[in-house]
Amino acid sequence: MYKNIKVIAFDADDTLWVNETYFRDAENEFAKLLSDYETENKIHQELFKKEIANLKLYGYGVKGFMLSMVEAALELSNYKISQKTLNQILSIGKDMLEKPIELLDGVEETLQKLQGNYKLIVATKGDLLDQERKLEKSGILQYFHHTEVMSEKKEDDYTKVLKRLEIKPEELLMVGNSLKSDVLPLVNIGASAIHIPFHTTWAHEEVSEEQKSSDYKTVANIKEITSFL
Amino acid sequence: MYKNIKVIAFDADDTLWVNETYFRDAENEFAKLLSDYETENKIHQELFKKEIANLKLYGYGVKGFMLSMVEAALELSNYKISQKTLNQILSIGKDMLEKPIELLDGVEETLQKLQGNYKLIVATKGDLLDQERKLEKSGILQYFHHTEVMSEKKEDDYTKVLKRLEIKPEELLMVGNSLKSDVLPLVNIGASAIHIPFHTTWAHEEVSEEQKSSDYKTVANIKEITSFL
Repeated sequence: MYKNIKVIAFDADDTLWVNETYFRDAENEFAKLLSDYETENKIHQELFKKEIANLKLYGYGVKGFMLSMVEAALELSNYKISQKTLNQILSIGKDMLEKPIELLDGVEETLQKLQGNYKLIVATKGDLLDQERKLEKSGILQYFHHTEVMSEKKEDDYTKVLKRLEIKPEELLMVGNSLKSDVLPLVNIGASAIHIPFHTTWAHEEVSEEQKSSDYKTVANIKEITSFL
Repeated sequence: MYKNIKVIAFDADDTLWVNETYFRDAENEFAKLLSDYETENKIHQELFKKEIANLKLYGYGVKGFMLSMVEAALELSNYKISQKTLNQILSIGKDMLEKPIELLDGVEETLQKLQGNYKLIVATKGDLLDQERKLEKSGILQYFHHTEVMSEKKEDDYTKVLKRLEIKPEELLMVGNSLKSDVLPLVNIGASAIHIPFHTTWAHEEVSEEQKSSDYKTVANIKEITSFL
């Protein structure tokens, strides 16, 4: 099936390890801290709007999320939020940056099997330092040739990765949990992709039914990808 | 002199374009906003301490600087700083992220001369998205094969870059304004480096006299590097 593949790129967050769950937990903590001012639902909505409004400026990752929480807290409270509470909001973010890494089931055995037969890389968006730190903490750093931290995961960004790797599209297989970021752009540039859904998807990463296509495989566990290789 | 060089890596901030000046301006604005609580000198000192304390968690770049300003403002004011002032502090950072790019003298003509004879790359620490945005705004993106955004610029980090580029140390020349980050680690791993001092150096980037060595060249303007190549 994937006979020309030379490089297998893995998304990191929610593909190799748990991530989105920590954002959901942080949003719930944030909503509790703001509960004097607004309903939980409204707080979630406004924080999400703030994140999207700041995405172009801050990009993905925890630091931008922290700055959006601070800004949303000031606005949602009509600038009445206490200074101590703002400090607690900073702590929510700092805790996220120091969370231990929880590898998803099957990750290490899959990497062991593929190692040596392919160049394995990590292709992730988010914060460079944070992603590197997670990879080091994860204990699976040794399986990867290197990490591509990308500011966005659109077709152009993957084309740049191909150029850097000096390979053709048909030589790249991407594996990830986000249809929007890890699968569809690859299919569109003639590369291959395998989708592994994670139980939680950030609203910004969701795609409509008509955007889906049949030009990629979907598996429930990362272990299954070796059967195609 | 540099006869084996295949790749020339350029630091970006304060080597290709002005950067440190904007941080100094931001620190001065920050000090003004906090002037009810402390002397200017104390504010500068505490902000710097906060940045260094957070460096391991946040890494380099404007977003971490913004978070450190918020935290320093809360602490310096003993949690009395007004919510509106905190919002102004966020604006200082957002403005930094949207600053136009001011290329340093000689940059473009030097890149034009070197282009085609060497693989030119950008090797920078800081925030991935912010550095990519600056490179796009700068108008010199087309001269570079790609950008290496590094979380740190120590010997190990450069060794990783060599591995990714699949070249030997003697085939790499690094050009930059920071002795600590752009010059000494290269010399130590057997690569070459040219130092171009910038008029302003962040305290964290300063090195002592005994750390300096004679194993690199120093030039006043980037144009002079072509005479060694």
